[in-house]
Amino acid sequence: MMNGQQYKESLKKLKPIIYYMGEKIDSVVDHPMTKPHVNSAAMTYELAQDPLYQNLMTADSHLTGTKVNRFTHVHQSKEDLVNKVKMMRMIAQKTGTCFQRCVGLDAMNATFITTYNVDKKYGTDYHKKFTAWLKYVQENDLMIAGAMTDVKGNRNKKPSGQSDPDLFTHIVEKREDGIVIKGAKAHMTGMANSHEMLILPTTNLLEGDEAYAVACAVPVDAKGVTHVFGRQTNDQRRLQGDLDTGNAEYAIVGGETLTVLDNVFVPWDRVFMCGEIEFAQDYVTRFAAYHRQNYGGCKVGNSDVLIGATSLIAKMNGANKASHIKDKLIEMTHLAETMYCCSLACSYEGVKEEAGSYYVNTLLANEVKLNCTKNMYEISRLAHDIAGGFIATLPHEWDFNSPVTGPLIKKYFVGNEEYSAEDRIKIARLLENMSGGTALAESMHGAGSPQAMRIMILRESNMEQKEELAANLAHVKL
Amino acid sequence: MMNGQQYKESLKKLKPIIYYMGEKIDSVVDHPMTKPHVNSAAMTYELAQDPLYQNLMTADSHLTGTKVNRFTHVHQSKEDLVNKVKMMRMIAQKTGTCFQRCVGLDAMNATFITTYNVDKKYGTDYHKKFTAWLKYVQENDLMIAGAMTDVKGNRNKKPSGQSDPDLFTHIVEKREDGIVIKGAKAHMTGMANSHEMLILPTTNLLEGDEAYAVACAVPVDAKGVTHVFGRQTNDQRRLQGDLDTGNAEYAIVGGETLTVLDNVFVPWDRVFMCGEIEFAQDYVTRFAAYHRQNYGGCKVGNSDVLIGATSLIAKMNGANKASHIKDKLIEMTHLAETMYCCSLACSYEGVKEEAGSYYVNTLLANEVKLNCTKNMYEISRLAHDIAGGFIATLPHEWDFNSPVTGPLIKKYFVGNEEYSAEDRIKIARLLENMSGGTALAESMHGAGSPQAMRIMILRESNMEQKEELAANLAHVKL
Amino acid sequence: MMNGQQYKESLKKLKPIIYYMGEKIDSVVDHPMTKPHVNSAAMTYELAQDPLYQNLMTADSHLTGTKVNRFTHVHQSKEDLVNKVKMMRMIAQKTGTCFQRCVGLDAMNATFITTYNVDKKYGTDYHKKFTAWLKYVQENDLMIAGAMTDVKGNRNKKPSGQSDPDLFTHIVEKREDGIVIKGAKAHMTGMANSHEMLILPTTNLLEGDEAYAVACAVPVDAKGVTHVFGRQTNDQRRLQGDLDTGNAEYAIVGGETLTVLDNVFVPWDRVFMCGEIEFAQDYVTRFAAYHRQNYGGCKVGNSDVLIGATSLIAKMNGANKASHIKDKLIEMTHLAETMYCCSLACSYEGVKEEAGSYYVNTLLANEVKLNCTKNMYEISRLAHDIAGGFIATLPHEWDFNSPVTGPLIKKYFVGNEEYSAEDRIKIARLLENMSGGTALAESMHGAGSPQAMRIMILRESNMEQKEELAANLAHVKL
Amino acid sequence: MMNGQQYKESLKKLKPIIYYMGEKIDSVVDHPMTKPHVNSAAMTYELAQDPLYQNLMTADSHLTGTKVNRFTHVHQSKEDLVNKVKMMRMIAQKTGTCFQRCVGLDAMNATFITTYNVDKKYGTDYHKKFTAWLKYVQENDLMIAGAMTDVKGNRNKKPSGQSDPDLFTHIVEKREDGIVIKGAKAHMTGMANSHEMLILPTTNLLEGDEAYAVACAVPVDAKGVTHVFGRQTNDQRRLQGDLDTGNAEYAIVGGETLTVLDNVFVPWDRVFMCGEIEFAQDYVTRFAAYHRQNYGGCKVGNSDVLIGATSLIAKMNGANKASHIKDKLIEMTHLAETMYCCSLACSYEGVKEEAGSYYVNTLLANEVKLNCTKNMYEISRLAHDIAGGFIATLPHEWDFNSPVTGPLIKKYFVGNEEYSAEDRIKIARLLENMSGGTALAESMHGAGSPQAMRIMILRESNMEQKEELAANLAHVKL
Repeated sequence: MMNGQQYKESLKKLKPIIYYMGEKIDSVVDHPMTKPHVNSAAMTYELAQDPLYQNLMTADSHLTGTKVNRFTHVHQSKEDLVNKVKMMRMIAQKTGTCFQRCVGLDAMNATFITTYNVDKKYGTDYHKKFTAWLKYVQENDLMIAGAMTDVKGNRNKKPSGQSDPDLFTHIVEKREDGIVIKGAKAHMTGMANSHEMLILPTTNLLEGDEAYAVACAVPVDAKGVTHVFGRQTNDQRRLQGDLDTGNAEYAIVGGETLTVLDNVFVPWDRVFMCGEIEFAQDYVTRFAAYHRQNYGGCKVGNSDVLIGATSLIAKMNGANKASHIKDKLIEMTHLAETMYCCSLACSYEGVKEEAGSYYVNTLLANEVKLNCTKNMYEISRLAHDIAGGFIATLPHEWDFNSPVTGPLIKKYFVGNEEYSAEDRIKIARLLENMSGGTALAESMHGAGSPQAMRIMILRESNMEQKEELAANLAHVKL
Repeated sequence: MMNGQQYKESLKKLKPIIYYMGEKIDSVVDHPMTKPHVNSAAMTYELAQDPLYQNLMTADSHLTGTKVNRFTHVHQSKEDLVNKVKMMRMIAQKTGTCFQRCVGLDAMNATFITTYNVDKKYGTDYHKKFTAWLKYVQENDLMIAGAMTDVKGNRNKKPSGQSDPDLFTHIVEKREDGIVIKGAKAHMTGMANSHEMLILPTTNLLEGDEAYAVACAVPVDAKGVTHVFGRQTNDQRRLQGDLDTGNAEYAIVGGETLTVLDNVFVPWDRVFMCGEIEFAQDYVTRFAAYHRQNYGGCKVGNSDVLIGATSLIAKMNGANKASHIKDKLIEMTHLAETMYCCSLACSYEGVKEEAGSYYVNTLLANEVKLNCTKNMYEISRLAHDIAGGFIATLPHEWDFNSPVTGPLIKKYFVGNEEYSAEDRIKIARLLENMSGGTALAESMHGAGSPQAMRIMILRESNMEQKEELAANLAHVKL
Repeated sequence: MMNGQQYKESLKKLKPIIYYMGEKIDSVVDHPMTKPHVNSAAMTYELAQDPLYQNLMTADSHLTGTKVNRFTHVHQSKEDLVNKVKMMRMIAQKTGTCFQRCVGLDAMNATFITTYNVDKKYGTDYHKKFTAWLKYVQENDLMIAGAMTDVKGNRNKKPSGQSDPDLFTHIVEKREDGIVIKGAKAHMTGMANSHEMLILPTTNLLEGDEAYAVACAVPVDAKGVTHVFGRQTNDQRRLQGDLDTGNAEYAIVGGETLTVLDNVFVPWDRVFMCGEIEFAQDYVTRFAAYHRQNYGGCKVGNSDVLIGATSLIAKMNGANKASHIKDKLIEMTHLAETMYCCSLACSYEGVKEEAGSYYVNTLLANEVKLNCTKNMYEISRLAHDIAGGFIATLPHEWDFNSPVTGPLIKKYFVGNEEYSAEDRIKIARLLENMSGGTALAESMHGAGSPQAMRIMILRESNMEQKEELAANLAHVKL
Repeated sequence: MMNGQQYKESLKKLKPIIYYMGEKIDSVVDHPMTKPHVNSAAMTYELAQDPLYQNLMTADSHLTGTKVNRFTHVHQSKEDLVNKVKMMRMIAQKTGTCFQRCVGLDAMNATFITTYNVDKKYGTDYHKKFTAWLKYVQENDLMIAGAMTDVKGNRNKKPSGQSDPDLFTHIVEKREDGIVIKGAKAHMTGMANSHEMLILPTTNLLEGDEAYAVACAVPVDAKGVTHVFGRQTNDQRRLQGDLDTGNAEYAIVGGETLTVLDNVFVPWDRVFMCGEIEFAQDYVTRFAAYHRQNYGGCKVGNSDVLIGATSLIAKMNGANKASHIKDKLIEMTHLAETMYCCSLACSYEGVKEEAGSYYVNTLLANEVKLNCTKNMYEISRLAHDIAGGFIATLPHEWDFNSPVTGPLIKKYFVGNEEYSAEDRIKIARLLENMSGGTALAESMHGAGSPQAMRIMILRESNMEQKEELAANLAHVKL
């Protein structure tokens, strides 16, 4: 396993083409915009070295029996599922932000199961090829970006019905030595500082969409791959100093790219699905369920920080003893712990798949998501409510550092005298950026899929059985 | 272990003094008002005989090694805690209402731990005495009423400060052979059809309140004990027929009594606390935590029935295909499963106590309660929303049975032609009574304690650690 | 104008056929089940005599220039619309329940406009006939039941597509002297103690449904009319005494009937619509908008009483000084006043119709409804939360009056010593019955129509204009 | 009255000292950070010239009888109060953001009443002096910044108890020709582009705080005044182009300053309160009530734009026909119109003050605030939900304009083919910035005052009367 420094060194050896503000980023490790995201991802390497967190951060590979970073592990037990959630809460408490590496983990776990199932039906060898690649990932402790979301074009049309066939990633050529793919993946969390990406197919594929049923592994710096690093709330602040950024070392949210695949070649030993449309839906559902499981870990860890910042700002304002302040902190805690409960429950209630690995309870994993969607906003709202207008109108840090206005700000922004104006501003900026960023980030799971998820809940909750229960008690024959 | 019939027979041998509508109830097994509650409690005996539910309904006693009904079991593992929740959801799906027996179970588990802790400090022998009594309970498969809530008088005053000393149960005499207690316990779920009651002390006892720190076991028909059976929403309907009652066989909610203890003598071997005021708070907290754990079981099982009834009524109205109907059913499911997640999580995250038994995670157990308090009302609201005014204005069942009006009702209350008006009315009545009753029942956990609970959340959520996390990320030294 | 006593006398002269509990009700004024509803409706007569409320309770008829009860008045100004809301809040504060007479008022105001519009298109004389009937209603100060909701059968089918043609009220014969109608109207608020009913057509009529486009006036005791009085939450309590009923004098909610029309003859001068299907939708929409306007009056008046009862019970429990109690009372007030604001706003923003009368702003009237649907439940939930389990397990009043158990209850149900156990129980019963009843009553507006209303909001809120505003600011050409 | 251009010219004649990013702003009209705020305020001048909006934008001065901009008008009728709300909604629809000028308007209306009341008690001449200044404001059509919120220091201490006396603005010297004041005002909306500020005292003044009871008018460029322009969400985007700003012409939210008053001299004829501590509370309450009235105008206008943007983005995504999308748009509309209803209601229910002007109904004005606090976040949440992750990860506009990445973005960010990727991005950016900005802006009204407001609601809602109503119906004598 690599440590944080080794991870950073390993990134320097890659040559991905990444653009931001119209220019190419030379080094994701050093560029001020990507550096904090690298720091955050590095935490997943660094903590794996810490004896205190061995249980959470590492696991014994079922492939090699040796210890691997949990972010490359295929879940072998319910305890593995639970430890994943607890690990995420713990890391998020230390980074105060997304550490990105879960997407690849979830993609790998979904692929492990789906390739097994596809092989079982078709006699293909995807599972064996995937397992070989996974072993390589584990041995080299790679960071993998899970590449799921296509840009999708017109939501009202299926992949092969789009006016531009590239709006969903697809196979443009099958060669003897491999395939050539084209398309673009959006919202690629952690992509800029990953080693490879694991491409997943889109959902809802019908006959005629075979070219879109593709899964494969591609290095982030493969030929034909171009990344555009997306911007974030208040991103420019990072270019001007540390104070206003809030969480300068690790930044806020995940750092996403638009990743364009322009006729990228993938050799056959890295192709894990190729045309099996009827498995795409299940594949994506598995990935989504694993991914929803996480939110009650990482988002709760982030909420811990945000609640702590809110409690501190109340103290710094001299308002912490008011009963309504306490009540709001309790409510924030309640909203966070409810999400945690759902993640724990869907993990403890996981099941063993035929492939041999463990999968979460999907109905309860969906509960994580449904609660997060609302609770993260409510937590932000309450944080703002307690913090007050201070966070909405604070001056620029250059004004704070200016010899003219600095003294005025330092004099007039003292609250509770036990704290300096500077510390109060630091906490306020942390709170401002965390609340705004994390709430907006919910949008990434917004349109479309939650409604599909809601419908899935209807199906999985076994309404017929419930109707029978009611009919029995009412003495009605159905 | 007894079966349902044996349980009913065993009740007939007791002679509790119970009043209702100004008259003494001769037989709780036969009286139309108490009969359905007996039926519901009997389900906890009946299902324990069913091979299908052995795992959930029974456990191996740690005292005797023999199989006992789980309702008399002291939890020996996290799995025991989880099985308790799953058992409750399962039973509630079959009764559609409270089966009452959990209160005694929770009281016994709390007493098991607290007596151990008191003995450890004072060298008393409460734990041994309690264990002996517990063995007797297990061997005879008794139903125990947990007797916690005092009538409490003026909430603004402590027990010994009340104008009438009896407003909290207290010891009025210590004799060589035992103690004499006086007071009254309110909202005694299942008391009327229990064999014994396990009396718990009230919380917040201070110096001078020693007489109020009392725990002991008392037969429901002990000398000096008088019960007044409380009334419930729409209770009179049971006296007029089955149709309008909704769930005629098992009734709605728990069937509570006001239980007056008028100088009741308790021999020393049944006394489990006597004056140790500093343990009262912890005792009650443990009982409450175990009890909150349940709600995500039983209330979710009830919700399953209610959701099923709602889905059926939508079909019977011919409205089940509307997207807003589906959306509301999904929302109801979401609200229910969130409660379930919290109960599972607080169970799986339980801890082993020094006494040897397992205790829930209290922070997460409180989450169960906080979610239930709101979600049960919202579930009811959505049920009403879908059912429509039909449930608010249905005629009396005697009008349904009348030769004059019956034909009119049967003609005009047909909805979807695949169902008869009678079946539609049956489901509507089930829905009406379940929703009204279960929502109101939340009030039993209303005043006072939830606020205390909220404060407890603030304490248990470790706000200082959260503040440190925030300070670290903001580079603020606390 | 009649006073309350005269109203009751006038009812005694009618001979409606009303069934309840399988028997015919001889006198609605005297029968214990209908008496409180009569008392409540009588309040609309009694207060019109009170000099203090002249402005709210009466108006000058635009037909005769003489003073009439506002419940028979056609709104002549925005002030009339506002006064209607304020009148309703005021009366509800005195009855603590529905006073039923608004339904006829709203039906009459809708008919006034629609008949005018139909005549304008078809040269018919409905408006003239309706105005003549209205004059008769005003001069005799009649109570009119608005008869809108058909029993509806299978919601998935249109009126003429039902398996039984009578599931929507329709014309079965057109004769020289009038029409013959058949069908049944459900949830007929106030019908049992009205003088006449004003029948409205159902909505969504298409070609082929002409027989269903019927509006007319029918005496409640016309030949062929049979009423079945519906049951309500805890209705049997009224038959056993006053204490447990909560609001014994005026009861809870409205007192609804199923009203069957079995080949009822209506002379032409009482027929106000006959086949004009394209006006049915608008007719019903107008009635609904006028009716939604009311909720922020009457339901807020009821909420005032419920909030007052909640505040009192907190005092009686000795808990009124806790900050969380205050906060919940504030929240209840907030929820109520928000509904009031919406009713005021839709009234003040009313418009003059071509017919000469005033009509509410429908978009804002729908806001009343959307807020009520949720707020009434939340108000009930908070009332329960503060009241505590006391309201869910109180003994039967016969136990309270019993020489055996009465003294026990009186001793043990004292809270704050400044109040007697009896008064505490009285307030608790008021609170219990008001909260349960009013929440359930929301179901009457549940299924179907709110979704239709939501769609109407989408249409009326002028989304295109909003899109243009956004496009302008984003410099996008649409 | 000035038009927009004249307003801008008038600003150029002033010389306020304003800092941002460590530098002095030479011209607020031209500086890219302040320019859009100037544009937005200019709209209040420009629309007053538009014949279409004469009724809303102008009024006849009660001082001179001539037509003045409504933003300088003292409300003479309920209609004036209503028109204020409607004007605000209308302007906000055109700017999509805060136009800042209401704060001064509200400060002036509060001062008009309070000076009258102070004079009445003390025989002072504040009202006359204020009226003279107001006439000058009206005649010159000045923009006035209402300067209410002090920086406040430790919230747990009163003004004279702070460790630094300057943490609340106070009089440091009374001279023959005027007073000298010191302190700082925070969150000063519109200050940078106003002509003058109207300083209001803080609330809750006790004996010993006399120096803090000060109200007066001060030019924004008076000697001793220094402004620090606060930063906002995504403010730096304005310095890099128009596309990512979202609403480049008018920006988002208000543009606030920290305004430091360092021994500023104010001549007596501009002093409107000087030591009358017992009037401070009422003064502030009036200002706050007038200000809360606004939110249901301007925030609803902003919401109209945001809802429009959300509806458009759904179309651009090809998702607008999904029933859950429609449902969310309806919910957004509902949340917005509820706020509007409250603002209308508190205006229509306004009262005439002894001073001759009209004041809003404060209970209902507080409802506006309580609904806004929650609804604005919910509206934002729903906007994000519909927009999807697109808004959270969009590339920088320089990447959009780059010859390398531009074509990729234009190809891959097409949704519904009827719209270009560019237009889709424009609407997404508008939506992103409006939702993030307006939600955070709620924090300005967060800490402290809402709780005070809630308590005020308890007092104003007349709980005693409500208790009496309940007691009457329960036949309980209080």
